[in-house]
Amino acid sequence: MRHFTHLKDLGPKGQAALIKLAAEYKRNEPGALLKGKVLGMLFFNPSLRTRTSFEVAMHKLGGMSVALEEGSGVWKLETEDGAVMSGDKAEHVREAAPVLSRYVDVLGVRAFSRGMGQADDDADGVINAFRRHAKVPMISLESAREHPCQGLADMLTVQESFGQTQGVKVVLSWAPHVRPLPKAVPNSVLLHAAAAGCDVTVVHPPGFELGEAVRAEAQKYAGESGGKIRYSNDQRAALEGAHVVYAKAWGPEPRASEDGIVASPALRGWMPTLKHFENATEEAIFLHCLPVRRNVEVSDEVLDSEFARVVDEAENRMWVQMAALAWLFGKA
Amino acid sequence: MRHFTHLKDLGPKGQAALIKLAAEYKRNEPGALLKGKVLGMLFFNPSLRTRTSFEVAMHKLGGMSVALEEGSGVWKLETEDGAVMSGDKAEHVREAAPVLSRYVDVLGVRAFSRGMGQADDDADGVINAFRRHAKVPMISLESAREHPCQGLADMLTVQESFGQTQGVKVVLSWAPHVRPLPKAVPNSVLLHAAAAGCDVTVVHPPGFELGEAVRAEAQKYAGESGGKIRYSNDQRAALEGAHVVYAKAWGPEPRASEDGIVASPALRGWMPTLKHFENATEEAIFLHCLPVRRNVEVSDEVLDSEFARVVDEAENRMWVQMAALAWLFGKA
Amino acid sequence: MRHFTHLKDLGPKGQAALIKLAAEYKRNEPGALLKGKVLGMLFFNPSLRTRTSFEVAMHKLGGMSVALEEGSGVWKLETEDGAVMSGDKAEHVREAAPVLSRYVDVLGVRAFSRGMGQADDDADGVINAFRRHAKVPMISLESAREHPCQGLADMLTVQESFGQTQGVKVVLSWAPHVRPLPKAVPNSVLLHAAAAGCDVTVVHPPGFELGEAVRAEAQKYAGESGGKIRYSNDQRAALEGAHVVYAKAWGPEPRASEDGIVASPALRGWMPTLKHFENATEEAIFLHCLPVRRNVEVSDEVLDSEFARVVDEAENRMWVQMAALAWLFGKA
Repeated sequence: MRHFTHLKDLGPKGQAALIKLAAEYKRNEPGALLKGKVLGMLFFNPSLRTRTSFEVAMHKLGGMSVALEEGSGVWKLETEDGAVMSGDKAEHVREAAPVLSRYVDVLGVRAFSRGMGQADDDADGVINAFRRHAKVPMISLESAREHPCQGLADMLTVQESFGQTQGVKVVLSWAPHVRPLPKAVPNSVLLHAAAAGCDVTVVHPPGFELGEAVRAEAQKYAGESGGKIRYSNDQRAALEGAHVVYAKAWGPEPRASEDGIVASPALRGWMPTLKHFENATEEAIFLHCLPVRRNVEVSDEVLDSEFARVVDEAENRMWVQMAALAWLFGKA
Repeated sequence: MRHFTHLKDLGPKGQAALIKLAAEYKRNEPGALLKGKVLGMLFFNPSLRTRTSFEVAMHKLGGMSVALEEGSGVWKLETEDGAVMSGDKAEHVREAAPVLSRYVDVLGVRAFSRGMGQADDDADGVINAFRRHAKVPMISLESAREHPCQGLADMLTVQESFGQTQGVKVVLSWAPHVRPLPKAVPNSVLLHAAAAGCDVTVVHPPGFELGEAVRAEAQKYAGESGGKIRYSNDQRAALEGAHVVYAKAWGPEPRASEDGIVASPALRGWMPTLKHFENATEEAIFLHCLPVRRNVEVSDEVLDSEFARVVDEAENRMWVQMAALAWLFGKA
Repeated sequence: MRHFTHLKDLGPKGQAALIKLAAEYKRNEPGALLKGKVLGMLFFNPSLRTRTSFEVAMHKLGGMSVALEEGSGVWKLETEDGAVMSGDKAEHVREAAPVLSRYVDVLGVRAFSRGMGQADDDADGVINAFRRHAKVPMISLESAREHPCQGLADMLTVQESFGQTQGVKVVLSWAPHVRPLPKAVPNSVLLHAAAAGCDVTVVHPPGFELGEAVRAEAQKYAGESGGKIRYSNDQRAALEGAHVVYAKAWGPEPRASEDGIVASPALRGWMPTLKHFENATEEAIFLHCLPVRRNVEVSDEVLDSEFARVVDEAENRMWVQMAALAWLFGKA
């Protein structure tokens, strides 16, 4: 049985195949490949793009979706084995996953980082618990460690903009935010770009390093794909000659200032403005997974500029998800 | 590209055409006019009728719907241009609207008044921001200024009851409530009845006037349709000879009494009872947009009487919405 | 017009027919029996299995569903006749039920016990108010008094395990919990097992008796079906020779201990462990309606054992609901 919860389920070659398939679907919709199939989606966290794009993707493929929100319409779920369930969690994943597997044909789960540290994020307990107990293919709607559908959509967008991903210079640039954010998206940008043969630079202030396990996995993919990976604390130098500027907030914050953003003027300067594109290539594009806090993470002038491809990138979620769903059912 | 967020998108003639079409659909469902189309609905406020009737309308037309609730399953949305998004709103309409436009074929938004005064309501910032940034047709699910699908449903109900709307005496009568309510519905009753050629009386206690801009727009429609508009503070006189008694709470309240309703016995008398129908016409009907607070806004005896057409009125939401959706797609 | 909100809508013979039909559907799906039909579901309480299994059931039958959550996306609903609605409830069932009846073809409601005592539970005010005012068939998604779809699913599971329900020894065994729970599920286990001709023992600590009205109704069904009913406070003796061990928490609790579960070590011993199966029959099965609090209501070792049929039982919800929906529309 296939699952798609982490890039390692696909590897570099599998990713390349799905990006090709997604591009084909975008040109010519494949019709009712999944007629009668049902996608169950369980959200532990909010969603706009993910839920809508998956529901429409299933509809385009001839199937249907059921979207459940944990803690709102749905019982709170326990995922730890052996738990004495005397708290606020009324149901265990050991029941929820196999039961949902009897109703639906593929199961998606969104479960962000619990904020319990790098090791907990790397273990990715919630989605892996579902994966262990589900009896149908699982797809990640973003978990603590990765957001693999986002990673695929990002690489499809790079492919569309430059005709290839190989050797494209991708700069993943840390950005300020009002609160500490999980690393799932930057992890996936790094992993998917490395697997796609990009020349990746991850640039961030000291103290915002990505986790070791993810960096090692990315290095392995770069070895397989012919990609390169660099890490830097010098944003200006990193952006030199960039094809793709990918901004994203992640990680621990310095203490908040009075206006609730970030303390240090130096770190505020990390927020992309048009000035940050001065030394990029002429055809440079700007990416962000969305949602984005305007004028905190990214300036209006960048998001409203010709550089921005964030709406194309979001649309591509739908097409790569259609490809991933087809693959999960052995139709690709 | 067509939108339907305010009556001015249709004008009197457009409204007449859609009411005719809705009546036809009610007699004979039109089948899969919108096969494969997707309606995205984004709710900033609760809904029972609107969500259900739109979902069923799309289903009857061969399409499907995705219903999103802002702040519950969906990120909170910023709509102000230039905002520094350091508060609780994680996503801007400048991203949300174009992104949703890539997934869905028509976008509905419900965004009630923010309670920031008449000018803010008239500006209708949230729905107009979506309209500005959406790339697909927009339909209002009720905004700060108007509830145009309700207005159409009301006029279809009048048409069904009296065989015409021209010259029908519609009395829009203010009613008590437990808290200040927005004016979108009374605005739409006035606008749609004026555009349909009704003889409209708006009656309310002093201090509960509808806004000037809406009144001026209604006057223009009355000029075009041959309708009449009167304003009054004398409920008893206004109800004389009424064909349609439309009760609705709106606007600022006098200080609440101990039981949480309204202070003055005089204002409590505005709540329709059977006594209020004594001088109405014999075939008079009672309308209310729902939800209605029984025995606060309207008495049980009216809602349970033969006068009440509120369930027909609610059903008509579905048929006018089918007509409006068909029109948005150029199928009408 | 047919409704299915309580077992008395079916009686023993009707139940037997629906279980037979559900078993047939499970072997061969019946196809688009309810093409174009819409199920509206209104949840006053959370749900995982119920919502998902009904949505998928309607999809398999060719129809669609709209799921509404009261108090979240939907106005809070008043159900008392004559209420002066000056509190937090914005809509009355007297409007909500007939209005929804204009949009949907069958209406499901979930409304748990309000915790106002046995008489209030027996009166089952909310679902009966909907039933009184709805103009389309109603189906219970669990109410204060009963959970009839669960009862059907339980009996289908017994039938599958033992080839019959007649004479099967069912032990409904009270279990500890962290808070007082409603009696709808134990009521339905008793009623449906009695109606299916089972040899039922209800065993619980003193003070946790089921209500008189339900016990009397069960006795009547046992008389019709040839079933037997016993009540006991001796768990060990009751489990002797059991075919079905059905654990469920219900009713008032002794004061909570420091760890939030239950006070008395004696009562904690009611939680099923493998030891509880020592004197059961060799082919004994374990049932629970789910959600279940592991290691509070039931031990891991039972839920993870070969005795457990809880996932089959949950799957059977879908098949019996398909049968019940077909029956409501006169297709069975």
